[in-house]
Amino acid sequence: MSAPSVSSSITARLDVEARPTAVSELTTLIEKHGGLVTALDVRESGQARMTVDVTVATRGDSHAEEISTALREVPGVNVGRISDRTFLLHLGGKLQIESKVPIRNRDDLSMIYTPGVARVCEAIVERPDDARRLTIKRNTVAVVTDGTAVLGLGDIGPLASLPVMEGKAALFKRFADIDAFPIALDTSDVDEVVRTVKAIAPVFAGINLEDIAAPRCFEIENRLRAELDIPVFHDDQHGTAIVALAALTNALRVIGKDLKTVRIVLSGAGAAGTAILKLLIAAGAGDVVVADVDGVVHRERPGLSPALAWTAVHTNPRDLTGALRDAVADADVFIGVSAPDVLTGDDVATMADDAIVFALANPRPEVDPAEAARHAAIVGTGRSDFPNQINNVLAFPGVFRGLLDAQSRTVNDTMLLAAANALAATVSDDELNPTYIVPSVFHADVTTKVAEAVEKAAREQMELDEAAAGPAAP
Amino acid sequence: MSAPSVSSSITARLDVEARPTAVSELTTLIEKHGGLVTALDVRESGQARMTVDVTVATRGDSHAEEISTALREVPGVNVGRISDRTFLLHLGGKLQIESKVPIRNRDDLSMIYTPGVARVCEAIVERPDDARRLTIKRNTVAVVTDGTAVLGLGDIGPLASLPVMEGKAALFKRFADIDAFPIALDTSDVDEVVRTVKAIAPVFAGINLEDIAAPRCFEIENRLRAELDIPVFHDDQHGTAIVALAALTNALRVIGKDLKTVRIVLSGAGAAGTAILKLLIAAGAGDVVVADVDGVVHRERPGLSPALAWTAVHTNPRDLTGALRDAVADADVFIGVSAPDVLTGDDVATMADDAIVFALANPRPEVDPAEAARHAAIVGTGRSDFPNQINNVLAFPGVFRGLLDAQSRTVNDTMLLAAANALAATVSDDELNPTYIVPSVFHADVTTKVAEAVEKAAREQMELDEAAAGPAAP
Repeated sequence: MSAPSVSSSITARLDVEARPTAVSELTTLIEKHGGLVTALDVRESGQARMTVDVTVATRGDSHAEEISTALREVPGVNVGRISDRTFLLHLGGKLQIESKVPIRNRDDLSMIYTPGVARVCEAIVERPDDARRLTIKRNTVAVVTDGTAVLGLGDIGPLASLPVMEGKAALFKRFADIDAFPIALDTSDVDEVVRTVKAIAPVFAGINLEDIAAPRCFEIENRLRAELDIPVFHDDQHGTAIVALAALTNALRVIGKDLKTVRIVLSGAGAAGTAILKLLIAAGAGDVVVADVDGVVHRERPGLSPALAWTAVHTNPRDLTGALRDAVADADVFIGVSAPDVLTGDDVATMADDAIVFALANPRPEVDPAEAARHAAIVGTGRSDFPNQINNVLAFPGVFRGLLDAQSRTVNDTMLLAAANALAATVSDDELNPTYIVPSVFHADVTTKVAEAVEKAAREQMELDEAAAGPAAP
Repeated sequence: MSAPSVSSSITARLDVEARPTAVSELTTLIEKHGGLVTALDVRESGQARMTVDVTVATRGDSHAEEISTALREVPGVNVGRISDRTFLLHLGGKLQIESKVPIRNRDDLSMIYTPGVARVCEAIVERPDDARRLTIKRNTVAVVTDGTAVLGLGDIGPLASLPVMEGKAALFKRFADIDAFPIALDTSDVDEVVRTVKAIAPVFAGINLEDIAAPRCFEIENRLRAELDIPVFHDDQHGTAIVALAALTNALRVIGKDLKTVRIVLSGAGAAGTAILKLLIAAGAGDVVVADVDGVVHRERPGLSPALAWTAVHTNPRDLTGALRDAVADADVFIGVSAPDVLTGDDVATMADDAIVFALANPRPEVDPAEAARHAAIVGTGRSDFPNQINNVLAFPGVFRGLLDAQSRTVNDTMLLAAANALAATVSDDELNPTYIVPSVFHADVTTKVAEAVEKAAREQMELDEAAAGPAAP
């Protein structure tokens, strides 16, 4: 049974008798039903009765209902409004757009709008690059989805995906001071998505693709990267890959093994799996074996898709065949971005000494983290209630901050590797241990360090591009 | 020669001798060159020298250059950085996106993002209308352009149009507390524009089309209105029409004539002209004659486009032919949304007694306003430096505030008329006079009154729509 979570909190307004034990009787009752009292405010107090707001973390909607019912059955207690904290936070949405300029009088109007603004427009006609200086473009990113692979909810459509996209935009602001706007597309046709994003691109300095189902996400990203002059980054792929590589880098630091020689098994060949694989190879991993629902990917496996055929050629140097658990035997590293419970603790026991297990399926990991920890030296998950959370928030804010600061027109593996290395380096030797291989998302340095590394890599790429383009006209 | 404008202000940092007359010598010099000193700050003062920031309104770039040169030639004065106030205001753009929710710790994260946000998404899957409650949709408008008819600048493209679209969004916030985001489209193909706006519509509760050239703007608006379930409003058309009708209503109040019987000549059959015509007819105007570059529009005129054929049938009851100035003779009202200097003061002299002239071409009106005022009882323009400015800012914030508050899915002539009437009514009988037929854009009641009227009309329309749809299932 899962633990009560703040994300499923209710606040109940209770009218109770003003007796010394009235409140403790209620909190005891709530705890008896498995709820966790996280706040208690006496709103009004009188001679005979008082009004109390009790906030309770629950295990979800039906658990909240159970607790509400129990409260209603207490004699002498009147239960008022019961509100859901998460829903309260969402009322009216999570973003607002503010004017940075004062509009107090006609003079202000004449500068920020007609007639003054015309001169600014003309300056951009003259020098299009000035749009990065004189408009919001320099700091604005689109969070684009088609709503087809939202969290673990699947294809819920654009409207229902909005709370996630707004949340992502709020994270962009909080962690990187980037202005991000949610674009939830009422189409999931690849051509249409590409066409739409290209059409709305002028105001943006970067595109963050989000929660778009595989394999369409690959084509959409590839085509947009080829056709746009701003960086396009599918966070479900590359954000995950950066944080996974950083975590693996630090796990290997703890264990004292080398990325080039360790045996790595990767479960999952979807958006995240493919991106992790490519970044592992770019980082120099020498022995990666990929498994999907049909088992280990190898050159002789019949019916490989073009993507899996590429994988077969670039992985599996010892020509393994069979099931996932066959590949896991003697492996040094397991990385799962696939499905719940594909491994057991016993499977982990067959791995090499000092095994590393990243079970990133969310909310239910590939192997029970507690079971895995009995046999592996280091365990990471995607969940916030276990140590070593592999969380994209560690990567995307800094990556985009760096890309925007460099005014980069592209994003490539070199920049992603730079981000992963910088992220890994934020954990000092003193801090590093088996339960602390990635920093907290609230660690002050994370965004700055990642951003600096990405900006540097992006500027180097731009210099290479300029050099390749030949000398400028005299 | 035009007057110096704050919208073309420069601020010059000057290092001058600390003599009693040093500053007055400079301001005298600036005034001699036609500049208007609007601010003077002593930044630093020493025994021998002081640093002064002088802000000067100029007539434009070349005039600013002339003044800068004159300052540089004064002996003993060192001219430092000269900055352009309008450009300074635009650095980094005019909008920012803020998170409305605090993100201080893991608990906050778990509510605004995973895992808590999933419950909010699921609620919207269950009840799509809840998107207006739980996301930014309820208060968010797109300012959409293709950059083809930007101010008086013409087809300058999406990137260079951004300062105008950002300004518009800033006005939405300032005057109606609406969150508006600029969408500048990298296409001017009608099908593509329609397709793109439909694709990005889910996050928006309304679409404000802006600066899209005629006749494409008509088809784009018509198709989007038919295919979207949120209101679509082309401000260049309907914003102008609402304010023009409100101004005309009040001008007729001053003069004591009746809209049903006055003779109205409308110069211009583009976006604004067409919308003004339709709203005048909807308001009950009985005698409107339209003229374009080819003269008066009448049924027998050869080569009429479909739009002009419609105009010919619905206007010109006395079957006038000939040139614009022929139609103007004996007319009670002239409304120009066409081109500079199509009429002279002498033409205005041929109009009926107590003539009303709205010369809205910007920046150069259809007739010199001072000339017109010698013969007409009431003169209005689109300019802020004459009385009676017909300014869209009087309409669009309130119109959208009302549409959003009603959660309206449409916008129609009834709502536009309601807006025009409410706007006219904000000028009380005590305030009304020939130079005050529309309120100041900073008048506190304007947005509220217009919004209330539009919301009421929109709610009435929704009730009619529901009644027409028949009784709900039991």
